Amino acid sequence: MEEKEKMTIGVFSGELDKALAAFIIATTGASMGMDVKMFFTFWGLNILKKNEGSLKSKGIMRKMLNIMNRGGSKRLNMSKFHMSGMGTWMMKKLMKEVKMPSLEELIVMAHSMGVKLIPCSTTCGLMGLAEDSFRPEVEPIAGAAYFLNEARESKVTLFI
Amino acid sequence: MEEKEKMTIGVFSGELDKALAAFIIATTGASMGMDVKMFFTFWGLNILKKNEGSLKSKGIMRKMLNIMNRGGSKRLNMSKFHMSGMGTWMMKKLMKEVKMPSLEELIVMAHSMGVKLIPCSTTCGLMGLAEDSFRPEVEPIAGAAYFLNEARESKVTLFI
Amino acid sequence: MEEKEKMTIGVFSGELDKALAAFIIATTGASMGMDVKMFFTFWGLNILKKNEGSLKSKGIMRKMLNIMNRGGSKRLNMSKFHMSGMGTWMMKKLMKEVKMPSLEELIVMAHSMGVKLIPCSTTCGLMGLAEDSFRPEVEPIAGAAYFLNEARESKVTLFI
Repeated sequence: MEEKEKMTIGVFSGELDKALAAFIIATTGASMGMDVKMFFTFWGLNILKKNEGSLKSKGIMRKMLNIMNRGGSKRLNMSKFHMSGMGTWMMKKLMKEVKMPSLEELIVMAHSMGVKLIPCSTTCGLMGLAEDSFRPEVEPIAGAAYFLNEARESKVTLFI
Repeated sequence: MEEKEKMTIGVFSGELDKALAAFIIATTGASMGMDVKMFFTFWGLNILKKNEGSLKSKGIMRKMLNIMNRGGSKRLNMSKFHMSGMGTWMMKKLMKEVKMPSLEELIVMAHSMGVKLIPCSTTCGLMGLAEDSFRPEVEPIAGAAYFLNEARESKVTLFI
Repeated sequence: MEEKEKMTIGVFSGELDKALAAFIIATTGASMGMDVKMFFTFWGLNILKKNEGSLKSKGIMRKMLNIMNRGGSKRLNMSKFHMSGMGTWMMKKLMKEVKMPSLEELIVMAHSMGVKLIPCSTTCGLMGLAEDSFRPEVEPIAGAAYFLNEARESKVTLFI
């Protein structure tokens, strides 16, 4: 049996536009038969947070960080033209008009196509996030060594 | 005949400093004999927009987006120290002083060295951009699958 | 003798969070036996600037740029939630709590593990930085062709 070509995407950014780019590339790769792993670190973890409920974290600073930094696929802003929500709202409206899937739909779609969504252990520790902070599509937490091991076997590696 | 080594650069950002970095790397690669493809998506499309004339786009929101987001190699700002234009002006002045080519010159140079400049079809659709929105050096619009097909054959792939 | 697998990291950004991500990946790679080169350009050069003393640069504009843009591992801000220093202070506090090394410690550690820290010649020229602007762990300045030559021999190339 031939092995699938691999792609590894490190997702550092938690903005709506960068998240869309990452998931469009990931689902395109999966549809081309690639074995795709996405590794989420720093603000990228926000993309994977649950949309519902409130996050529990220990210590006043982590509580503050997780409130300011609430996350969830439906709450992300754009890196440009956010304009107190106006630009982000407009972008979502335009996406609907051209029948582009929303970020929420892209995440579900990626998961169902076999794309693996992996949170970075170091930044989870830093930000006080545990596995139950994330949506059900997410894999167990893993470290930077896991990311690099995948990356060095990959035909394509991106850092977004 | 030996095939040339490939490099693929995904250009997401539309800021002057990131655009300069992308085109310096692209022209350096071309001068080393590499076959270089640059794939422009989201704000990166601004780099390829015509400097002259006005863009036509359908619908009030796309019109607004393309006004706020005018683009063209001569209108981009920096990601840092833009300072209402002062920092961007200073950067251009410093570039002239050390005889570094401007972004406009780098684009023309890249094209004449065989670097291919390709707009991403999904974001063109989203932002209401057609092929006549772009400068003459630009190739036909292509999709994410084209980007990934090039990337997986490349020795170097960057996402900027 | 078997050759080591290579990793090349282009560091464009000078923010604390992106610098941490770059150095965590670099030291992880080195600990896995990889030969790691980090190539610093534009704002990434700030990470390598000396923490002590003042920078000398010629011309009023470069002097201004280097004051606004002071750099040094201990002075960097975050790309998000800087909040006039509050967020950056909080992040450093959280890092201490989980016993994560500081950026300063990561730089020293990376150097002692054999990671090479290389400033980009073009942007050094642009910003009026000479080799004595940088901390002692830094290698001689090199150009974009050096970066690409390393990248095309690398198993993993990232642009951060």
